[in-house]
Amino acid sequence: MTSSFLGQREDFGDLAETVERVAEALAATAVARDREGGVPLRERALLRESGLLTLAIPTAFGGQGRSWPLVFRVLRRFAEADSSLAHLFGFQHLQVASVLLYGSPAQQDRFLGEAVARRWFWGNAVNPRDNRVQATRVGDGLVLNGVKGFCSGAGDSDVLNVSVALGPEPTDRIFALLPTARAGIRVHGDWDNMGQRQTDSGSVSFDGVQVAPDEILGPPGVASSPRATLRNLIGQVVLTEIYLGNAVGAMASAIDFVREQTQPWPMAGVERALDDRLLQLRAGEHAAAVRAALALSEAVNHDFQQAWERGEALTWAERAELAVGIAAARTQAARTALQVTSQVFELVGARATATRFGFDRFWRNVRVHTLHDPLDYRHQGIGAWLLAGQAPNPFNYG
Amino acid sequence: MTSSFLGQREDFGDLAETVERVAEALAATAVARDREGGVPLRERALLRESGLLTLAIPTAFGGQGRSWPLVFRVLRRFAEADSSLAHLFGFQHLQVASVLLYGSPAQQDRFLGEAVARRWFWGNAVNPRDNRVQATRVGDGLVLNGVKGFCSGAGDSDVLNVSVALGPEPTDRIFALLPTARAGIRVHGDWDNMGQRQTDSGSVSFDGVQVAPDEILGPPGVASSPRATLRNLIGQVVLTEIYLGNAVGAMASAIDFVREQTQPWPMAGVERALDDRLLQLRAGEHAAAVRAALALSEAVNHDFQQAWERGEALTWAERAELAVGIAAARTQAARTALQVTSQVFELVGARATATRFGFDRFWRNVRVHTLHDPLDYRHQGIGAWLLAGQAPNPFNYG
Amino acid sequence: MTSSFLGQREDFGDLAETVERVAEALAATAVARDREGGVPLRERALLRESGLLTLAIPTAFGGQGRSWPLVFRVLRRFAEADSSLAHLFGFQHLQVASVLLYGSPAQQDRFLGEAVARRWFWGNAVNPRDNRVQATRVGDGLVLNGVKGFCSGAGDSDVLNVSVALGPEPTDRIFALLPTARAGIRVHGDWDNMGQRQTDSGSVSFDGVQVAPDEILGPPGVASSPRATLRNLIGQVVLTEIYLGNAVGAMASAIDFVREQTQPWPMAGVERALDDRLLQLRAGEHAAAVRAALALSEAVNHDFQQAWERGEALTWAERAELAVGIAAARTQAARTALQVTSQVFELVGARATATRFGFDRFWRNVRVHTLHDPLDYRHQGIGAWLLAGQAPNPFNYG
Amino acid sequence: MTSSFLGQREDFGDLAETVERVAEALAATAVARDREGGVPLRERALLRESGLLTLAIPTAFGGQGRSWPLVFRVLRRFAEADSSLAHLFGFQHLQVASVLLYGSPAQQDRFLGEAVARRWFWGNAVNPRDNRVQATRVGDGLVLNGVKGFCSGAGDSDVLNVSVALGPEPTDRIFALLPTARAGIRVHGDWDNMGQRQTDSGSVSFDGVQVAPDEILGPPGVASSPRATLRNLIGQVVLTEIYLGNAVGAMASAIDFVREQTQPWPMAGVERALDDRLLQLRAGEHAAAVRAALALSEAVNHDFQQAWERGEALTWAERAELAVGIAAARTQAARTALQVTSQVFELVGARATATRFGFDRFWRNVRVHTLHDPLDYRHQGIGAWLLAGQAPNPFNYG
Repeated sequence: MTSSFLGQREDFGDLAETVERVAEALAATAVARDREGGVPLRERALLRESGLLTLAIPTAFGGQGRSWPLVFRVLRRFAEADSSLAHLFGFQHLQVASVLLYGSPAQQDRFLGEAVARRWFWGNAVNPRDNRVQATRVGDGLVLNGVKGFCSGAGDSDVLNVSVALGPEPTDRIFALLPTARAGIRVHGDWDNMGQRQTDSGSVSFDGVQVAPDEILGPPGVASSPRATLRNLIGQVVLTEIYLGNAVGAMASAIDFVREQTQPWPMAGVERALDDRLLQLRAGEHAAAVRAALALSEAVNHDFQQAWERGEALTWAERAELAVGIAAARTQAARTALQVTSQVFELVGARATATRFGFDRFWRNVRVHTLHDPLDYRHQGIGAWLLAGQAPNPFNYG
Repeated sequence: MTSSFLGQREDFGDLAETVERVAEALAATAVARDREGGVPLRERALLRESGLLTLAIPTAFGGQGRSWPLVFRVLRRFAEADSSLAHLFGFQHLQVASVLLYGSPAQQDRFLGEAVARRWFWGNAVNPRDNRVQATRVGDGLVLNGVKGFCSGAGDSDVLNVSVALGPEPTDRIFALLPTARAGIRVHGDWDNMGQRQTDSGSVSFDGVQVAPDEILGPPGVASSPRATLRNLIGQVVLTEIYLGNAVGAMASAIDFVREQTQPWPMAGVERALDDRLLQLRAGEHAAAVRAALALSEAVNHDFQQAWERGEALTWAERAELAVGIAAARTQAARTALQVTSQVFELVGARATATRFGFDRFWRNVRVHTLHDPLDYRHQGIGAWLLAGQAPNPFNYG
Repeated sequence: MTSSFLGQREDFGDLAETVERVAEALAATAVARDREGGVPLRERALLRESGLLTLAIPTAFGGQGRSWPLVFRVLRRFAEADSSLAHLFGFQHLQVASVLLYGSPAQQDRFLGEAVARRWFWGNAVNPRDNRVQATRVGDGLVLNGVKGFCSGAGDSDVLNVSVALGPEPTDRIFALLPTARAGIRVHGDWDNMGQRQTDSGSVSFDGVQVAPDEILGPPGVASSPRATLRNLIGQVVLTEIYLGNAVGAMASAIDFVREQTQPWPMAGVERALDDRLLQLRAGEHAAAVRAALALSEAVNHDFQQAWERGEALTWAERAELAVGIAAARTQAARTALQVTSQVFELVGARATATRFGFDRFWRNVRVHTLHDPLDYRHQGIGAWLLAGQAPNPFNYG
Repeated sequence: MTSSFLGQREDFGDLAETVERVAEALAATAVARDREGGVPLRERALLRESGLLTLAIPTAFGGQGRSWPLVFRVLRRFAEADSSLAHLFGFQHLQVASVLLYGSPAQQDRFLGEAVARRWFWGNAVNPRDNRVQATRVGDGLVLNGVKGFCSGAGDSDVLNVSVALGPEPTDRIFALLPTARAGIRVHGDWDNMGQRQTDSGSVSFDGVQVAPDEILGPPGVASSPRATLRNLIGQVVLTEIYLGNAVGAMASAIDFVREQTQPWPMAGVERALDDRLLQLRAGEHAAAVRAALALSEAVNHDFQQAWERGEALTWAERAELAVGIAAARTQAARTALQVTSQVFELVGARATATRFGFDRFWRNVRVHTLHDPLDYRHQGIGAWLLAGQAPNPFNYG
């Protein structure tokens, strides 16, 4: 598989070799593992061993202190090969960001230091629309009871990031970091979905789970500043890059298939399918669309990095403008990826629909992942900003 | 599931009760069987027992002598529920048409009479792009050796329609009708595809299979007249109706899901998802597109019936105009169905992607079935007729 | 220009010769008159003389008593040639319908009888969103003061259909039929628009205009029954057919242009542009889309005729289902026409953009006419019916 | 008019004030001048006086030596306001590039020096598909006879860039720089087109026009190196930026119109149109698409600058990759602009179609300018590169 038409491979800098090695290892078994589902223990181990789980952790804590655009580019490259593992990789970095944005200096030191030292792979239990977990104050800490769905990467995780609503407002949510092995936590492994099949995004139950005060992130905490609300935006970018990776992966696989296996259509009057002008037309249309979506993604990721570096100086207005850009990048990536992952079949032809090629996984992965928050509400939010000057709600999917 | 927005249920006339009973029985287990694949013996038995396999057989041979638009409407209704069984149902009628168009009066009498008497379910081995079966003349008959792919419905079939190329021209193809139990025929059951998973469209091998002279259809035979070339067009309409059935089925399922299960999006400001104006907008867009595709299909199916009834008076020019109409109906149905079966997910939301709902089967079924002959070459053929006055090649996918 | 690819020319029956003669006369000068704008006196005279203005008037009143689908087909044929005149032709029939649906038997006898005898061409002043005309009760009649915009066909009209809101509810609107020459009425001729340039859809002012009681339509009046609300639906169908006529006209003109004038693109490797496969592909795509939109239109026009013939037996539920179908036909026609009238330029090429060819008029006409009531609210209305079971509001753009 | 949603205004650096002043002056009269057509003498004078015509001329010759991405951004900003003048501005720079790429050092010194000193505005007569101008060798020079079409900016120009084919191959073309006042040259002013109405792209005739040897550019000349073939790519980028400028201009105008003039739709249930969620949805969709196209354009313009700076070290492979990127940017810009300039009408509503608002000019300008070389052949060329590894022909529209 090649993505050279994107001209971006060199951009991994000194990480190039590691990234390619991991990506190729993921690709080699991705079709089979898509069928199996479950928890990809070997591939999770591969990621741990690669050292890439610490990319976003500042060097002060022993991490690699890489820029976000680079992290996102690695994520995208993985998603070309294996969308589920890319997701787990992305959410790892989202949890790291949670500590950086919500955690006290002491918590950052402790949690990120341990993450490096012990090669933590973090799972999440943060779905904000699922409020079935109840928190009871006991002393200075909390006790959690209930169940949470869509907990990606909980299986085989070292630490879980758990969000709980202590009140009705978005800003009433707290985040706690708990060892997955903590008494009372049970990861159910009940994810059985049409796509993203190895993200292990099933349910986790909490049965009298103790939370110590210093396991609750903050201060500063969730709602303290424009900067703190950058966390949501990382979540958005992760989605964007997963879509783009699938689109690129589908295109690259299709190009290889046309070159190697597709029989020319009798009425095309060519001896090789790759010379069929109608196929070339469609390949060109898809590639141009993918390139535009990629360019927008790269541009807003650069904007994100600038906002990140502004730190506490970041204003709500700047945050709004950034959020609108990230929303646009996500909707464009989603639409393009949905289109391309479905349309590539017209390049490769009927024989490529055999289960063993797994060509439909790109579309299934994208389709599943575009629904977490509706694209139309993203577009409407962009329009509300343009027409009415309304900023996206930074605490509520904005 | 309801398709009342199509206002067509009553059009089955006296068959309405039977058609609905069968469709609902198919729907009840369709998701589970999509996962299983293989040969749907129970459902094939259900179709045999329903009597609907003889719809297109003229009353002179003991059949029901129904019009083609009615047959196609039943097929579409089945495809709403179960695209694989609809396919088998459609190809049954294609084989019946083969006998009516290519067979001698004696062959029609014999094969169609037996089809009624013994409730034959016919399989096919007619893929014209696969010429791996060789025929050797032995006496007045033939001996077949080789293998054929994409043989839908071969498993559990009583009779196989086998096409073999005796020379390089499309008109050199002959069709033979053989008992599936004939010595030397082996149905491999090796179909494992991302869609149409119970069509059993795997390979059949022929090892010294004897073909008697009167098992070879004709005279008149394949290339005798414009009328004879109507067979290809039936194959096209079968595809069209499968697309449309899936689109209608996806919409109807989605509407039910929104009403019963979808949670309203927080930013929609409504208490029921069905009141969300953005969802209403999208539902309306999809429904309008489906209705247009359906209307074109019904209109050209009516044209087809008129052409069928003209018999040998049908001219090549009339045949070309009909073929262009049927091509347009197929491309519109395909595009609409691809769009709708993918977009309905934005109505139903993330929770509907769980494997147990099987919502992706509509898209997978359509996607697989739109590739047999490329949609772009259909469009190009329509354009060649409009711009250059070229008729679609009636022997070669036209 | 030819529309034979639609296979509908013969459907005008005994009117074929007249319709073609008028259409061709309109086509001959349409490009020049599009530039000029203003009131097309000669072409209005042509329509009067053709006798086609009385198509929908029942034979009992001296009219031709033709079916609505035929009237709409004639309208569409005119729109292929000249969208402005088609609009005036369509609104003529809308006013006739107003008398049939809202007028008392005596009013029908009087107004429709005179319409036949004097070859009335009717203008309208009925835009429901413009409530600047005030009505004062004086005796049993009314006196009107104010101004009304978007009054298509007021110039050179014999009679004006004027609607006035007597209260805040949609059902408070009344319709009055007044001679355009009535004292106090002034047609301003101030229409200067990017499209539909000869519809003369400017403003009309009313300065102490007397309205006699028997000039106010009713009883039964506007809100009396489901049947009465069919009037809005005729207005919708008129729009649909204008879109379709423009789409067909654009396609037919483009096909002619490619055949006669377009130079082959050097990289196409063909000697005639009409043999260019990429052009054929696009021509086929457009034609297939147009055919689907046409088929839906024909189907719902047939449904409309059935509803019309049900008379006062028509129920609100049937009316709702019909309205949804007509909405779907309109949105599909609009989208298809917008797409096709813009995309045909890629068939004909750069030289066809010279002003003298007037190729952009098709898009401009469609674009202007798709905005009167928003397509998105039509789609949303269809979705509200599907998801929530809400009928379109029959008094308010439904 | 505001384009702040693109966040790019500051990127003009020290030119910001001048660029905005010119853009606003152009915008103030753009609608009226679109109706008039002809040669915009005042606006051409404004550009001359602004000093911006020398942006791309190296400082060594007295020019400003600005980067190409900046030049293209200025061009795009002008196209938001006035697509015709933007075109003339862009082609000015294309002619400057011709001298830099094809001219000898002495010619560069002479022609670019004079261009600065005398504030030359250059016209073109270079359409490669129009070979009606014949060149006869007379001594060391040439004599030209014939006529050339699509000569943008010839009227009121100081110098004309004339291309003539001396043989059948693309590399047989030569470019000559002649004073427009040269004896025998006649600018006809016969441009009357549906869009780009003030580009003055009519015909120029040559009647025994003398060309001195040192007026023929070269050596190095047209076909000398990959670098020399960058000229075509500048022509492509000019088109891209014109599309994007129109898309941005249409969006910005529409947003202003919705805020200030559009009446809320009754069924929207809002008091201000700008709060209508369906309008917000569409505004968001358009804006996201425009942003993606802009991002791709900015990215490939950056790539172009890098290629430019490589000078003669540029390889054919690098040139091919750049050409594919520029092709993708152009097709994406074109599709987006066609879509957006047509769809903005659904934001602004029916009243915005009055001629005085000139809203249709954005679509007309884009539509005309997307046809010079077909978008589908660009897509096919991208696909040929991806599938078959074929580089775009650098001498023939590649």
